[in-house]
Amino acid sequence: MPPAQDALATLRLPPCPLWPDTRLAPKEAAPPRRPQTRADDERHGPADTRPYRHGPLLGDDRAIGRDWARPARRPVAAGRDQFVAWCREAGLSVRVDGIGNIFARRAGTEDSLPPVVMGSHLDTQFNGGRFDGILGVLGGLEVCRALDTIGHRTRRPIEVVNWTNEEGARFSPPMVGSGAFTGTYTLDWARGRIDEDGRTMGEELARIGYLGEVQDSPHAFDAYFELHIEQGPILDREGMQVGIVTGGFPSTGMLIEFKGETAHTGPWPMERRKNALIAGARFLVAVDDLGWVHAGTGGKATAARLVAWPNKPGILSDWAQAVGDVRHPDPTTSAVMAEAMRRAAFEAAAKADCGVEILDVWQWGGRIFAQDLIEQVRGIAAARGYRHRDILSQAGHDAYFVARHAPTTMIFTPCKGGITHNNGELCTREDLEPGLDVLLRAVLARANGPD
Amino acid sequence: MPPAQDALATLRLPPCPLWPDTRLAPKEAAPPRRPQTRADDERHGPADTRPYRHGPLLGDDRAIGRDWARPARRPVAAGRDQFVAWCREAGLSVRVDGIGNIFARRAGTEDSLPPVVMGSHLDTQFNGGRFDGILGVLGGLEVCRALDTIGHRTRRPIEVVNWTNEEGARFSPPMVGSGAFTGTYTLDWARGRIDEDGRTMGEELARIGYLGEVQDSPHAFDAYFELHIEQGPILDREGMQVGIVTGGFPSTGMLIEFKGETAHTGPWPMERRKNALIAGARFLVAVDDLGWVHAGTGGKATAARLVAWPNKPGILSDWAQAVGDVRHPDPTTSAVMAEAMRRAAFEAAAKADCGVEILDVWQWGGRIFAQDLIEQVRGIAAARGYRHRDILSQAGHDAYFVARHAPTTMIFTPCKGGITHNNGELCTREDLEPGLDVLLRAVLARANGPD
Repeated sequence: MPPAQDALATLRLPPCPLWPDTRLAPKEAAPPRRPQTRADDERHGPADTRPYRHGPLLGDDRAIGRDWARPARRPVAAGRDQFVAWCREAGLSVRVDGIGNIFARRAGTEDSLPPVVMGSHLDTQFNGGRFDGILGVLGGLEVCRALDTIGHRTRRPIEVVNWTNEEGARFSPPMVGSGAFTGTYTLDWARGRIDEDGRTMGEELARIGYLGEVQDSPHAFDAYFELHIEQGPILDREGMQVGIVTGGFPSTGMLIEFKGETAHTGPWPMERRKNALIAGARFLVAVDDLGWVHAGTGGKATAARLVAWPNKPGILSDWAQAVGDVRHPDPTTSAVMAEAMRRAAFEAAAKADCGVEILDVWQWGGRIFAQDLIEQVRGIAAARGYRHRDILSQAGHDAYFVARHAPTTMIFTPCKGGITHNNGELCTREDLEPGLDVLLRAVLARANGPD
Repeated sequence: MPPAQDALATLRLPPCPLWPDTRLAPKEAAPPRRPQTRADDERHGPADTRPYRHGPLLGDDRAIGRDWARPARRPVAAGRDQFVAWCREAGLSVRVDGIGNIFARRAGTEDSLPPVVMGSHLDTQFNGGRFDGILGVLGGLEVCRALDTIGHRTRRPIEVVNWTNEEGARFSPPMVGSGAFTGTYTLDWARGRIDEDGRTMGEELARIGYLGEVQDSPHAFDAYFELHIEQGPILDREGMQVGIVTGGFPSTGMLIEFKGETAHTGPWPMERRKNALIAGARFLVAVDDLGWVHAGTGGKATAARLVAWPNKPGILSDWAQAVGDVRHPDPTTSAVMAEAMRRAAFEAAAKADCGVEILDVWQWGGRIFAQDLIEQVRGIAAARGYRHRDILSQAGHDAYFVARHAPTTMIFTPCKGGITHNNGELCTREDLEPGLDVLLRAVLARANGPD
């Protein structure tokens, strides 16, 4: 029997034993890996072989099957195991799909209806914090526990999902779990993603016990809500409590390959050099300059990765790959920036007398969230008296892929100074409660709503 | 009994069974390691995990103890073993010092005198050829075998040396074997050099059986001659047969560290970014530009290495290291270029709002070879009728360190097009014979000379 409407109306999230939890405290920061160099151990002591600072326990998903501490490499699935344990304590039934996505289900009174789904990702960036993604997963669990406190069972079932490898920190590309679930990537392709040691994601998921049954087709969702920290400074600066996410910056990323010739760094004449590393560096600088051109209107251009081979003193590199992306709130300007980035790749290659190929172009963002869900979330935030504003996401999220599968929207919370992808990422319970409350009420409304 | 002077005067290098040798043929080229990226296996097939093309058998020294073919990693010392076997076949006594330098000795009639030493290095760059360094070592062995053909024993002993890790391709810095021998580096420091997998050079040398007895002080040399390919296009272009190396371009290298802050590549405002990778890229571009400014007078500026952390799409890097070097035949201009490179590091850091530190500065080149040896080599080349010219080395060589220990000079041979540090490196027997002949006669004259 559903409780009286009064009970639902006055329902609040309980002081939750899960949040904040000491198990979410970041471990002591360790210095990043410093590749061995001439002066390394004289100046820094023996090279630190840990390639990233340890983040939160629940973020160790990024290290599926791997503990970076040498010499032993032992399986690390503590974050996933902890989440599953908490779900089972809350009476949820847990299943894992063919790419390691975890679905925790709370039955509905009409349990054959498609579930209302909440979620995000437990994995983190190499230097990430303890809220990016984790908030959306544990927030979903909190919603379920809140309903338990008043014994309410919704009409539709509710699910909490942890999508595998949203960040793409160990296995590229990002958002591969939601991409495989929604058919953007085939399951075989997703399982075949290789880390820099040559291990596949499928093998590693199997090794830690998180490679579930193959699903030929994903189960239907009634709706998908993703609660997430803004990962930017706007809400915090303006004192806003809730961000109503109406879409994302139209964005374009490119993977560029440069090809040159190896030669000696000494005698080889400047005019005969084809140093692919220099082609890559010129591309990076051009992308950064492009970001500055459009900074005044909110644009960003980022070159975050450059690898080259052999990339050693003494020899010119014959191969380099760079990744660049551009983001702008205005679709036309975003397209102009993407074209400028493409041109920059060819100019950089020409200056360094190298070949160039654009290996991959990917795009995300735009206005693909469900208008009725956006309006519902905005209405709840207003009715509850929260300071809120519409906002565009500037980052990639699983929600973009899920939006191809089911009506989808996102809810943003502020985070201190907008700091993210950094151990300094911080939110207080007070920062998060309005967003959690809106999530709770939006899911409730949807789960108890009419067909 | 020494042979008649006639026999020495008419002595020629025999058609040598060692050179060219099929065992020196480069193995089939394999593609370089391509770090795993979004499009890798779609476009290139599964990621190749071999980090460099296999070079010549005798160049496998670079891979001390390691076979890059996965999954097995087995010791690779084939190059060293082959050299030692050939030395023993030639009746030379072989010993290995505390950093793996191999000395093969041919006794003299006054065997307590300091030896005349010839040599270079068997290790190669990741994409290196089969002559760089290898020529000087096997050339020394050929000299010994030529003397055997006429049964001549020199007054002073003769030694052929293979210096460990000249290229610095696996363990940094380069020229560490000759540096340790001559006391530039301590033996412990040299043995403690770490590769990117955290293995020390000392451990790896011990594992393959090339960590010899510790020597507290190096044995005295009467003189040191290093035969080497020019590694540049000058001799080949001018049709010269022998290069009389009078010194090296005054050169300066720097290891630069940039420090920034990790942040999200999307929402984080351009004006708050501290992307250390961009600081590094701006430094690389500035160094390359500097090389072009001085190209007309023979100058070179090279940025051959850039590493960053985390260096992943999605996150700004908080750390980068770059290596740059400048070389110019004129010492004053070389110093001006070094100062410009230093300034470029600070300007690059300022533009990217990052911290910067110059971790290491190293210099080489100049006129440090022995004038009497230079004149002797020039005289022999002239007397033998070889087209020859004085030339400055533009690369680093073990000879620079050895010059601090004993009278030293170098002899250059042409190589096709000056191509080096590249699988296309090529010399014919005809390209090499004049240099080998000059080496033979210079060593003979020195080994039989008065006190």
